[in-house]
Amino acid sequence: MPTPSLGSASAELIQDLVAANRILAGEGVLDGFGHVSARHDKDPGRFLLARSMAPALVTAGDVMEFDLDSNSIDARGRTAYLERFIHSEIYRVHPEVQAVVHSHSPAVIPFGVVGVALRPIFHLGGFLGVGVPVFEIRDVGGLATDMLIRNATLGAALAKTLGSAPVALLRGHGDVVVGRSVREAVFRGIYTEVNARLESEALRLGNGQVVFLNEEEAKAAAETNSAQIGRPWELWKAKALAESG
Amino acid sequence: MPTPSLGSASAELIQDLVAANRILAGEGVLDGFGHVSARHDKDPGRFLLARSMAPALVTAGDVMEFDLDSNSIDARGRTAYLERFIHSEIYRVHPEVQAVVHSHSPAVIPFGVVGVALRPIFHLGGFLGVGVPVFEIRDVGGLATDMLIRNATLGAALAKTLGSAPVALLRGHGDVVVGRSVREAVFRGIYTEVNARLESEALRLGNGQVVFLNEEEAKAAAETNSAQIGRPWELWKAKALAESG
Amino acid sequence: MPTPSLGSASAELIQDLVAANRILAGEGVLDGFGHVSARHDKDPGRFLLARSMAPALVTAGDVMEFDLDSNSIDARGRTAYLERFIHSEIYRVHPEVQAVVHSHSPAVIPFGVVGVALRPIFHLGGFLGVGVPVFEIRDVGGLATDMLIRNATLGAALAKTLGSAPVALLRGHGDVVVGRSVREAVFRGIYTEVNARLESEALRLGNGQVVFLNEEEAKAAAETNSAQIGRPWELWKAKALAESG
Amino acid sequence: MPTPSLGSASAELIQDLVAANRILAGEGVLDGFGHVSARHDKDPGRFLLARSMAPALVTAGDVMEFDLDSNSIDARGRTAYLERFIHSEIYRVHPEVQAVVHSHSPAVIPFGVVGVALRPIFHLGGFLGVGVPVFEIRDVGGLATDMLIRNATLGAALAKTLGSAPVALLRGHGDVVVGRSVREAVFRGIYTEVNARLESEALRLGNGQVVFLNEEEAKAAAETNSAQIGRPWELWKAKALAESG
Repeated sequence: MPTPSLGSASAELIQDLVAANRILAGEGVLDGFGHVSARHDKDPGRFLLARSMAPALVTAGDVMEFDLDSNSIDARGRTAYLERFIHSEIYRVHPEVQAVVHSHSPAVIPFGVVGVALRPIFHLGGFLGVGVPVFEIRDVGGLATDMLIRNATLGAALAKTLGSAPVALLRGHGDVVVGRSVREAVFRGIYTEVNARLESEALRLGNGQVVFLNEEEAKAAAETNSAQIGRPWELWKAKALAESG
Repeated sequence: MPTPSLGSASAELIQDLVAANRILAGEGVLDGFGHVSARHDKDPGRFLLARSMAPALVTAGDVMEFDLDSNSIDARGRTAYLERFIHSEIYRVHPEVQAVVHSHSPAVIPFGVVGVALRPIFHLGGFLGVGVPVFEIRDVGGLATDMLIRNATLGAALAKTLGSAPVALLRGHGDVVVGRSVREAVFRGIYTEVNARLESEALRLGNGQVVFLNEEEAKAAAETNSAQIGRPWELWKAKALAESG
Repeated sequence: MPTPSLGSASAELIQDLVAANRILAGEGVLDGFGHVSARHDKDPGRFLLARSMAPALVTAGDVMEFDLDSNSIDARGRTAYLERFIHSEIYRVHPEVQAVVHSHSPAVIPFGVVGVALRPIFHLGGFLGVGVPVFEIRDVGGLATDMLIRNATLGAALAKTLGSAPVALLRGHGDVVVGRSVREAVFRGIYTEVNARLESEALRLGNGQVVFLNEEEAKAAAETNSAQIGRPWELWKAKALAESG
Repeated sequence: MPTPSLGSASAELIQDLVAANRILAGEGVLDGFGHVSARHDKDPGRFLLARSMAPALVTAGDVMEFDLDSNSIDARGRTAYLERFIHSEIYRVHPEVQAVVHSHSPAVIPFGVVGVALRPIFHLGGFLGVGVPVFEIRDVGGLATDMLIRNATLGAALAKTLGSAPVALLRGHGDVVVGRSVREAVFRGIYTEVNARLESEALRLGNGQVVFLNEEEAKAAAETNSAQIGRPWELWKAKALAESG
């Protein structure tokens, strides 16, 4: 049976996580499915994730706590997402990761099923410059899975594919985006979608001939942008709260 | 003259049917035209369908009852849809079907007029893995129809083309989606549209080279997803009610 | 100086015209520019058109009356659209036309600048089956116009190009849609836009190989649909009024 | 230390600048980033620009004053945009410019990274007829910038690339649009986005064969349109205020 965590998560972290759910839904990155989690700020061996529900409707009372085996600490009758192993296995092997988004981001999905790399088309996609790996579930789960990351083995394989990248694509499924904070993961989730849309359009307009950011430009832009996340965050949060009424 | 049904349809079924009309309109699957029906839960020889009106405006008082010859049981001056034969003929020959959606789903229509198959591009489109037949009205109605399924002969031919598939395309017109419940038909209607949009985009991005879900993945994913429909349903319903004021 | 008209236009016609302005703006056919008119129902030598303003904001008090030379009957300080000659010249030579829409309908504009014909991709575009002519202003106005139909000569040339068709494209500008009622013109305006969007997508998906409605299907579908316009009209009107607050 | 300006900016200019921020955000030209400025109407050596924040949230109290070296006159603890040098260097060398928009306009970005020219596809894009230069930051900043115009040297180089054109694209970043008034800059910003969307679509539909406005048509259309800006402005402003609640 799981032991209690080392303390209560901060109210600010819970607030950011609830906002993240609503922002990502409002911006079209999450639909009725998908989820976003945060590593517990008092206990790095725990993480916070909503109960199994549509992200747009999440409130603070829906946030559950899990250990790194994806055991629920405080279920109280609440049902957990089948794919919580995405989160636990990434937190287990990537200590710098503080937040994880799993989505069916619509402009991104096509990049996961064809041999075209997702690359930084503009400065706001700079974080993609380190490369975006694609996870093929058949390599570890065989030819007859239901495509879900529904156990620790699949989660560990995905975490390994992700490596130190901020984004990995899941073939025929969606993607995973991580950040050093909830806000950074949200920022990256939104601009992964925007970058995918712009890249797809540019590749068509230019018949495949596109000038992408080079490695140094991408790295420098990513560093600059990570310091500016508060600016769109205030807007996204205001919009998400307005929509929630 | 039609005989009374074996009992009143349950209030929950009527509620789901009204919600289905508004959800499918809100998600852009239905426009001012199109319709959704449910088989009567007390009498499998009857079905429920709104009077001839825009789906987004349907209320419980607009729901009419029909027999499997598309005769109205309780018209009370209300006008029936010209294409109600889509519903009656499908219910007649497919006993497992409990709900039918007919739409002009915008991303789907192109697939009905070119020789490209609609196939599962991601897990949420898994139910498409059994194949999506295309109904050519010229084969049964000749070269000069108004494209509508306006009688039992055309309806029966469409029901035959559909077979045991969850979706059939109508060339130059739209599509038909069926489910084992109203909620499943709504889920499939929405994700048929989403899958079509993603597939079209992926085919262009990959110059026709796309890794689709294989047959087993599609089947397994479809089974998993059918057990998760309550999650997006709550969201869609909340949004549809909010829009209705 | 213009003489008085043969009577006041009916309140219902004015109401439909105001609704038409707001509906076409709400559905994205009209932007801040464009306009819609109705032939006077008491005097076929007159027509009604808003003062020069954004269609989304039009109220009954903004509707002006014009004769078929585009002279204002009741200006009272209100400014007329520069392009009112589109309307007057069409009403002059096409007695069956009761309403005219001029728009910069976004999916339609590309069809006016390339050699690809706008054709009925689905039954709701059936009215396009008689053919959609393209007006080239250079043929009558020379190589240095400002592209606007700003006088009777240009208006008459456009009316001639239109002929008995329901839609004509204006190269590098937009389109003109006519109807036998305000509601029919609105219906056709909206489904010209939808058909263009679907056709463009289908041509790409099918690499130019598309099964369009044949001439007889298009004609039969157009006749059926013209009898069903009340259905979407109620929805569009409800939405437009809700947006206006 | 900067000296005081020659007088207070007019209330109407401030109002237009606040409206411009909200309009461009509402129309999708600006996202959480980007900015719009106005030259001070009492002192051509000064300009007005919001503090570093999302444009959709800007109020009159957020507007700061800068000199042409991008020094803040009245910071009072407010943080300035990193890229204010875009504005100062354009105002310095282009005396006719009264307003500047910098955006990540989504349909425009692809044109900045492929070799396809942005050209007037319809009359409302006529102002693009003089040509749209592309600024390559590598030419002046080298191969390892963060893509931002973060100093006077980069700003001056961009202002030189812009020349007397109304629009310049920034490779891998976005664009700059200028006007002889705030309203003209907003008009051009919105129709640069619309024109890009239509041109991209037309190039695909026509396999690269498109009839653009010729030079004289573009010039004449641009002159006509500049006199009609009040019409959409009233609409955009009404919408932007309604959204702000």
